[in-house]
Amino acid sequence: MSNYDRFLSRAAERMQQSAIRKMGAVLASGRDIISFAPGYPAPDTFAWDAFRDIAADLLGSHDAGVLQYGPTRGYRPLLEAITSIQHSRGMSTTAEELLVTTGSQQGLDLVARVLIEPGDVILMELPTYVGAITAFRNVQAAMIGVPQEADGIDLAALDATFERLRMEGRRVKFLYVVPNFQNPTGLLIGLRKRERLLEWAERRDVLIVEDDPYRELYFEDSASEADVRPIKADDRFGRVVYLSSFSKTLAPGFRVAWIAAPAALAAKFEMAKQAEDLLTGSLDQRIIFEACRRGVLERQLPILRQHYARKRDVMELALRRDLGDSVTWPKPKGGFFLWLTLPKEVDADRMLARAIDEGVVYVAGEAFYVDGRGKNTMRLSFSAPTHERIDAGVNRLARALRGEVAALATKASAAVPGAS
Amino acid sequence: MSNYDRFLSRAAERMQQSAIRKMGAVLASGRDIISFAPGYPAPDTFAWDAFRDIAADLLGSHDAGVLQYGPTRGYRPLLEAITSIQHSRGMSTTAEELLVTTGSQQGLDLVARVLIEPGDVILMELPTYVGAITAFRNVQAAMIGVPQEADGIDLAALDATFERLRMEGRRVKFLYVVPNFQNPTGLLIGLRKRERLLEWAERRDVLIVEDDPYRELYFEDSASEADVRPIKADDRFGRVVYLSSFSKTLAPGFRVAWIAAPAALAAKFEMAKQAEDLLTGSLDQRIIFEACRRGVLERQLPILRQHYARKRDVMELALRRDLGDSVTWPKPKGGFFLWLTLPKEVDADRMLARAIDEGVVYVAGEAFYVDGRGKNTMRLSFSAPTHERIDAGVNRLARALRGEVAALATKASAAVPGAS
Repeated sequence: MSNYDRFLSRAAERMQQSAIRKMGAVLASGRDIISFAPGYPAPDTFAWDAFRDIAADLLGSHDAGVLQYGPTRGYRPLLEAITSIQHSRGMSTTAEELLVTTGSQQGLDLVARVLIEPGDVILMELPTYVGAITAFRNVQAAMIGVPQEADGIDLAALDATFERLRMEGRRVKFLYVVPNFQNPTGLLIGLRKRERLLEWAERRDVLIVEDDPYRELYFEDSASEADVRPIKADDRFGRVVYLSSFSKTLAPGFRVAWIAAPAALAAKFEMAKQAEDLLTGSLDQRIIFEACRRGVLERQLPILRQHYARKRDVMELALRRDLGDSVTWPKPKGGFFLWLTLPKEVDADRMLARAIDEGVVYVAGEAFYVDGRGKNTMRLSFSAPTHERIDAGVNRLARALRGEVAALATKASAAVPGAS
Repeated sequence: MSNYDRFLSRAAERMQQSAIRKMGAVLASGRDIISFAPGYPAPDTFAWDAFRDIAADLLGSHDAGVLQYGPTRGYRPLLEAITSIQHSRGMSTTAEELLVTTGSQQGLDLVARVLIEPGDVILMELPTYVGAITAFRNVQAAMIGVPQEADGIDLAALDATFERLRMEGRRVKFLYVVPNFQNPTGLLIGLRKRERLLEWAERRDVLIVEDDPYRELYFEDSASEADVRPIKADDRFGRVVYLSSFSKTLAPGFRVAWIAAPAALAAKFEMAKQAEDLLTGSLDQRIIFEACRRGVLERQLPILRQHYARKRDVMELALRRDLGDSVTWPKPKGGFFLWLTLPKEVDADRMLARAIDEGVVYVAGEAFYVDGRGKNTMRLSFSAPTHERIDAGVNRLARALRGEVAALATKASAAVPGAS
């Protein structure tokens, strides 16, 4: 038997390989390829020695809980540590409002499963995080994009979209936003706009799902702690489901993240997680807790801000040098990503083969749109490569782009009737 | 805002707290309670020192992959190690047919999401594993139970059930079975019956989901390696999705398990996992791989078989001593569980309060049924408590049962008209 189509759910029929994770095959080919594709943190910043000591202490303790099943909500001391983190970000969150998740990807998936019935609408920034698109597609949500301005999502367009959908009799369950150093654009939603989003959600009776993995990684030359205040911090009515993670600050391999939500929803997310993986890894949760308790996380943050800000500088310098005339981008004020707009005739997805030939990869922008737009855009991650490789990678990218533009020009002139 | 019902998906409306995990609150109360409830492995059997050394080596290596994002399919060397394990169990499995999962619970969830459309039928043993019920309920499957005989699922009843459903125009997607030391009954499906199940699946065009976490834990006085041959080992037509785990042999806190399935389905499970948690913990996967490579797993197995067989002996001895006249159970030939049938008037769920008063807990059998039956049954896990506590726990259970029977008799005589 080789055809299993008759056994698949409708969701499974439509499941697709992620554009980012497909890239893995290219990178595994062994060729010298500089990757600006996945949003990997820089492994040389990981607190290796601290983690080694913590793991040795935990496993040396023979404390059963370190390797045993545990509560679905999460390891209690870690939940308390997260409560403190929430507090430091301006949110007062109780343990009943918290759930540890197996990465923020699981958080997105739980939110989708608990809130979305096939056909329900999710409003999203255009472009938006591809992992959210994947999770929301798998519950057969209708994803509708809303354009962004320099200070984030366009409120007038948001409300007009909502109104149009309402007239069509369609149910909007929530708005999904990444307010801090958005993936993929690197944009930051302005503070006043955050307040107005809350007012809007209240007026329109929708929830806001606020995905906030990058907030600690603000670059001190262009943003401050005040700029990254969560929408959830002013959520008086229980409209916001807030997601954050240790993946970008400690390490993603531990798969430890969290959801903060109104208690009634947190209880449902917990039940959904029971069915999904019972609990997040016990050793992982305890290592993360110890890293909080011993001050490892706190010591990391200023180091990371500087580390990624310098990489952003290196990438911007190289881009201006090699591509300054032909591309544009908003300056990243934090996070891992730079969002590049190419000449309008260029299709970044088609150009990828040429880029691979030159030895560089990125994620073509179309993957971050839910409406097929963004063909002449791409996401560049500056987080993982060294300064030298960022510089060399941009140079390769410039060669690929020049080659692509020249090829398109040749093709266009060949297509002109009478030209030879 | 305190009521979020209007935001919930239909699946979320029906989600329930698991009967086993609710018990956590009782156990966390701090009282001296002997727990036969959750199927926890014995933490004193964990290879603590080996894990400590392995973690120190991995984290001391500063090898990025130990803490970085990685492929959704799983850490390549671990996939190869699992291929060898599959081979040792009589299955030839390629890497394209494998997926590492975040515990077998995730495996069940992925299977459900990829195969089940709301209303599709899943056939299951009666009683069956409560974690599977939870995962299948969350995709709104129709779960239909099939009785078991001493050598496992009743084939005549299975086919009759299928035929009845077919006449009603209902679609059966798969049969879910735990052939080795079933959770909760501890039963073993006979070898001839396994072959016939495959023939039946081929004839009826359904898949078999074979959940096999306990197979290594056969008790040498009553079962052998030959008895636990997977159904998948003889699956010539690609009918079987096979799940297994390191949770019961190495430790559950690592959350590392796997699915072996026809390549076309494995690819879909991978896509579903991308949306669900991107990848299973990187450190966890590498620790498990090293435990395989260094022979830790192989050394554990005979130790575990003996350890759990002796605990089963202690429990059976105590049961015969304290409850011999009033209860029955099939002798567990492996695994973690003993399935107790009480006098027919006793409701194990109602008796639980009395048992907690006496200082012992179990899981009332009804949770393992999908049709409300099994009220006078319970699952006892002998895996985690010490010999002394198993013995004392059975004694407490006996007191609770005698108290319950006496109370029911009083109530019954009071209910007789004319009796005073």
